[in-house]
Amino acid sequence: MKLVVFEREGRRGVGILEQEDRVRPYRLTDAEAAQGLQPIIEARLAGRVLPLADVTVALEGVRLVAPFPHPRRNIFCVGKNYHEHAHEFARSGFDSSAASGAVPDAPIIFTKVPETVTGPHDPILMEPRVSAAVDYEAELCVIIGQGGRGIAKAEALAHVWGYTIVNDVTARDLQAKHKQWLIGKSQDSFCPMGPCAVTADEIDLADTPVRCWVNGELRQNANTRDLIFDVPTLIETLSAGITLLPGDLIATGTPVGVGIGFNPPRYLKPGDRVRVEIGGIGQIENEVQEFQAQRRAGSAA
Amino acid sequence: MKLVVFEREGRRGVGILEQEDRVRPYRLTDAEAAQGLQPIIEARLAGRVLPLADVTVALEGVRLVAPFPHPRRNIFCVGKNYHEHAHEFARSGFDSSAASGAVPDAPIIFTKVPETVTGPHDPILMEPRVSAAVDYEAELCVIIGQGGRGIAKAEALAHVWGYTIVNDVTARDLQAKHKQWLIGKSQDSFCPMGPCAVTADEIDLADTPVRCWVNGELRQNANTRDLIFDVPTLIETLSAGITLLPGDLIATGTPVGVGIGFNPPRYLKPGDRVRVEIGGIGQIENEVQEFQAQRRAGSAA
Repeated sequence: MKLVVFEREGRRGVGILEQEDRVRPYRLTDAEAAQGLQPIIEARLAGRVLPLADVTVALEGVRLVAPFPHPRRNIFCVGKNYHEHAHEFARSGFDSSAASGAVPDAPIIFTKVPETVTGPHDPILMEPRVSAAVDYEAELCVIIGQGGRGIAKAEALAHVWGYTIVNDVTARDLQAKHKQWLIGKSQDSFCPMGPCAVTADEIDLADTPVRCWVNGELRQNANTRDLIFDVPTLIETLSAGITLLPGDLIATGTPVGVGIGFNPPRYLKPGDRVRVEIGGIGQIENEVQEFQAQRRAGSAA
Repeated sequence: MKLVVFEREGRRGVGILEQEDRVRPYRLTDAEAAQGLQPIIEARLAGRVLPLADVTVALEGVRLVAPFPHPRRNIFCVGKNYHEHAHEFARSGFDSSAASGAVPDAPIIFTKVPETVTGPHDPILMEPRVSAAVDYEAELCVIIGQGGRGIAKAEALAHVWGYTIVNDVTARDLQAKHKQWLIGKSQDSFCPMGPCAVTADEIDLADTPVRCWVNGELRQNANTRDLIFDVPTLIETLSAGITLLPGDLIATGTPVGVGIGFNPPRYLKPGDRVRVEIGGIGQIENEVQEFQAQRRAGSAA
């Protein structure tokens, strides 16, 4: 099952994708719909059946937003989780963890703030004064259903509600400068997400292609079977001492082919279009735009 | 002004501390009070005056909880931000960022998940199977009032609503093993906070003592004047490309004297009592307890 979060006639909705081009919305309050898939997951865990609308709407008549427009807490992200990418990143000179070897012995976990999330077709905003080294990272993102602590690998997949796509956009200069990666990973708009979320049964972790194009040029072309630490290992590792919660998001890491892997690096610039496609989910495409100073006042809260 | 968040007769409240031992509660809905100081800060920003109760209650008749029982997003934390601590940590062999030198050139920022937060007198839970190297870190924590992006140093303190105390409890083995510090810093119960929050006018950043005792033995004894990166610098750095939000929390780093600084290291063990005191705010004291397996089922959500 594929679910989408959307805006239509000024209101947010959550619905099930039917026949590839129709959406059947759930009947939700505005407060529930504002949270995207979160209330859908919580209702399922509580054994509640959420009512659906009698009529469907055309997909082309809605604007898709991220499945989790405001995640409940920072997004867990995994670094250097594909072999070839671990080597390209270590070689790049931007890896503050490289002293300990290219391929990690244990999952490297950092976070992005929830407010990095933008829609599947929203712009990636860069401000050259802040970072001139903005890079893309195509990633499969796990959506946790039932939470828990001390989840063993063997039971881990029962805690996965489903999956979505993220682009773990990264300011390489800030990632290196600040050693810990939070700042380089958490710049406003640096987590395009979507276009839908799929339930776990729709993804074969042993064979799911992950691809990324910049301006139509294929840059990343890998498969989730090549993950160094697989999804059950990530869940076991995180939940050993951190209680996982419904709606938690875990971006599983990016494969080889990021901009920093080229010599010289091929960073993103305004006007570039980045497309990430994952088999069984779909694709997101985001244009890089220059952050406008006048937006700053508006974004202050 | 000092504010406390408390529980009394099964209900949560938020109030102003009067005469050191009386609390005058705000009139809040249960949903508002559940968020601790968040609605107080937001009301002030909106120019709304929140009504106060006509009567006060005795401080000794309430149970204090953390000023932000459920922060809106992960807590921003600063690593190696006092000179002598930067050296002791680099020497310890547990610092995955040490290759680049003991004293950082730019703030090192990582996060703790919001659910690490516990009250000023609640237990710190350790599970030896997960980590046998649990350490304390006394820290002054900044509470952001007015948010914003691109905040210059000169204006930064106008964005500070106030301050509280946190103990940035850390699993040193996990901090080193996973390179990025999220896991080692985010174990359940690893952020005791309180006992109150004070408005910015009550703290002199040029002269505020930060101390920590373990079982009555003074371990940390420093002053905020010795911060490597001061509060305005931290706000300028974070907000350059990350919009800060009201209620954001920034733990400013810990001084010399943590357990890992001893040879051999002096880690915490069940039964230990850790007290953190910051001038002008007060003190928190937390007992280390072994995580009980039966709690695990209860903590699954």
